[in-house]
Amino acid sequence: MNSAASSGSHLGLVGSSEAESTAASASRVVSDQAPGRRGLAAELPDFPWDTIATARATAQAHPDGIVDLAIGTPVDPTPRLARDALVRAANSPGYPLTAGLAELRTGIARYLTERWGAAGVDPDATLPVIGTKELVAWLPTLLGLGPDHLVVYPTTAYPTYLVGATIAGCGAITCDDLDELGELRPALVWINSPSNPTGQVLGADELARRVEWARARGAVVASDECYGEYGWEAEPVSILHPSVSRGSPVGLLAVHSLSKRSNLAGYRAGFVAGDRALVGELLAIRKHAGMIVPAPVQRVMIELLADSEHVEVQRRRYAARRRLLRPALESAGFRIEHSEGGIYLWATRDEDGRRTLDLLAGLGILVAPGDFYGPAASTYVRLSLTATDERITAAAARLSGR
Amino acid sequence: MNSAASSGSHLGLVGSSEAESTAASASRVVSDQAPGRRGLAAELPDFPWDTIATARATAQAHPDGIVDLAIGTPVDPTPRLARDALVRAANSPGYPLTAGLAELRTGIARYLTERWGAAGVDPDATLPVIGTKELVAWLPTLLGLGPDHLVVYPTTAYPTYLVGATIAGCGAITCDDLDELGELRPALVWINSPSNPTGQVLGADELARRVEWARARGAVVASDECYGEYGWEAEPVSILHPSVSRGSPVGLLAVHSLSKRSNLAGYRAGFVAGDRALVGELLAIRKHAGMIVPAPVQRVMIELLADSEHVEVQRRRYAARRRLLRPALESAGFRIEHSEGGIYLWATRDEDGRRTLDLLAGLGILVAPGDFYGPAASTYVRLSLTATDERITAAAARLSGR
Repeated sequence: MNSAASSGSHLGLVGSSEAESTAASASRVVSDQAPGRRGLAAELPDFPWDTIATARATAQAHPDGIVDLAIGTPVDPTPRLARDALVRAANSPGYPLTAGLAELRTGIARYLTERWGAAGVDPDATLPVIGTKELVAWLPTLLGLGPDHLVVYPTTAYPTYLVGATIAGCGAITCDDLDELGELRPALVWINSPSNPTGQVLGADELARRVEWARARGAVVASDECYGEYGWEAEPVSILHPSVSRGSPVGLLAVHSLSKRSNLAGYRAGFVAGDRALVGELLAIRKHAGMIVPAPVQRVMIELLADSEHVEVQRRRYAARRRLLRPALESAGFRIEHSEGGIYLWATRDEDGRRTLDLLAGLGILVAPGDFYGPAASTYVRLSLTATDERITAAAARLSGR
Repeated sequence: MNSAASSGSHLGLVGSSEAESTAASASRVVSDQAPGRRGLAAELPDFPWDTIATARATAQAHPDGIVDLAIGTPVDPTPRLARDALVRAANSPGYPLTAGLAELRTGIARYLTERWGAAGVDPDATLPVIGTKELVAWLPTLLGLGPDHLVVYPTTAYPTYLVGATIAGCGAITCDDLDELGELRPALVWINSPSNPTGQVLGADELARRVEWARARGAVVASDECYGEYGWEAEPVSILHPSVSRGSPVGLLAVHSLSKRSNLAGYRAGFVAGDRALVGELLAIRKHAGMIVPAPVQRVMIELLADSEHVEVQRRRYAARRRLLRPALESAGFRIEHSEGGIYLWATRDEDGRRTLDLLAGLGILVAPGDFYGPAASTYVRLSLTATDERITAAAARLSGR
């Protein structure tokens, strides 16, 4: 996905030739209708899940059944609060507001201010999105970036940052130490703390350093804070906190999702907030482009953002699973790296991650191989805490040889 | 918005210079972050609703209150069937399928086949969308169209066809008689029957002629059939009907919405179906781009597409309003054109539509001036049937001088 490993540097430049070679290995076909089209479908990376089909089959054959820790899809119930709000809003014949209901925008601003200590975020600097994956994927396009622009994202990362750059036709480069970019002047820098997949949590000083670097070059900083509610050995900090933003959201966009916070992935609910002018631009385009969060989902978001109790309930669930799974992995010879935050354990046996994948599949445990997230991560695997207590207990027992 | 009127022809070429002049007259600002960006927000047309603010204020001052027929937002209740399905699906912690649940894809294919007599539409040639406005706005981009491509849409039209071409950076041209395009070879041709705003219903022969023309030139035909359930003096025909498609959906995309069919605009529910390879391309990109219909909404769609009774109830509501409003307009000196289908009356007094707007505002009735839909329509106004029976009755009484 990037050349970080092969170049021997921490920089990985992702060019169109690599995108094409990915496409060449894919079975996807572009229709012959309207010839001369770009064929965007073929430029995008393959969905790699097919490559773990054999491991999945092996894990499924375990006499006590598969423990699927590969995909981070929440399994605990959507909170009662959300369900009740959805039901109350079920009569919604008319068009919703793209900007979000006034109560929702106020609620987002209040949540960022009270929960995250954000400074200077008014309601009109917030915008609901149809789950944050669409915002991540479309942000470079919505910002009007193109072939003359460069997007920077972490070396080991959620694949959608690259997808977003590819859709917009931008250059993309992976980098964790921005100083290595030298004279390059990116238009957009992605930060993701806690990280998917590594669980790394960046401190306020490191975040502030990145913001300062980007501001000096006129780059927008987008901070994917979707796992922010889950800090374990470190407390996540929002990019909008004054220790990072220096009190001003100018040039900054914080991206939040309710999928993990509130077991709400099925509803597609998230928001972006920060720089008022940038948010205004996004809104202007999204109004024309019909990117509207359904009215009942907006009502649910209002209720959930005002409540922290259900988040604490979910935190305790993940914490308990983590306490079971982490020592079991360590007892089985795994080393856990980072994982200070988020809903994954990032583990290695210092061997090819595909070998680890197979080993765990033999125990009936399915994981995501590190190479899904970039070549620098090929010796790791990602284990999600999004399985039931019963399944996590089973995995821990199998790892401990009990 | 297009130069159809000023060129004296039925062709209106919409170039970037005109888009810029639209932008120049707008108050929208592009942030100075990440300089050198395209500033897409400024390229898009203005939302013209501000221009009827005075008329709105006048109408609101009517002693019996405003009758707002300007925006076509459904006001009748979301069907019980939909609300019950939403409630049943409220526990949705995990990620939904971008492709749609198997039951949903089957349900869409069955609806198209049984209701519309579509030929050759399998479930995997269908795809749910987050309301059809987003599909209309993103289709040229998702198809990989760009500056070398041309999008054709009707002379008097829903503004989002132009928005879609603008976002993708395509050329755009308005045209109702494709033969006038001469040697031009568009990549995408939009059809909209029943039309928003005119209510014109195109017969199977005319649709077939357009499909044949497009197929001979390799153009994709996208048919916006969002008002299809509402035919009055003419029966709408789907582009996927064999009398139009010649039995094959190749090169064709039918676009359907549940917003008007099922008073569901608040839920954002629609679908696209037709050419399997094109739908497959759209799906491949939309999976990466996170354009996912929420799980509870997918469940609602399954229920609603299998039911025609609630549609018949709604048809009767609009028919009754139409029977009240149409003769009242005629008695007040209006001529109704087209309006054979859809949920609007397309009316003229053969004067500047802004003058008609003011006249009606004086009666407390707010309408949309025809110029919202292109310069060729500047002597018309659009009246929506999406107001309560009580308000439509009030409008009819005011028009009749009672």
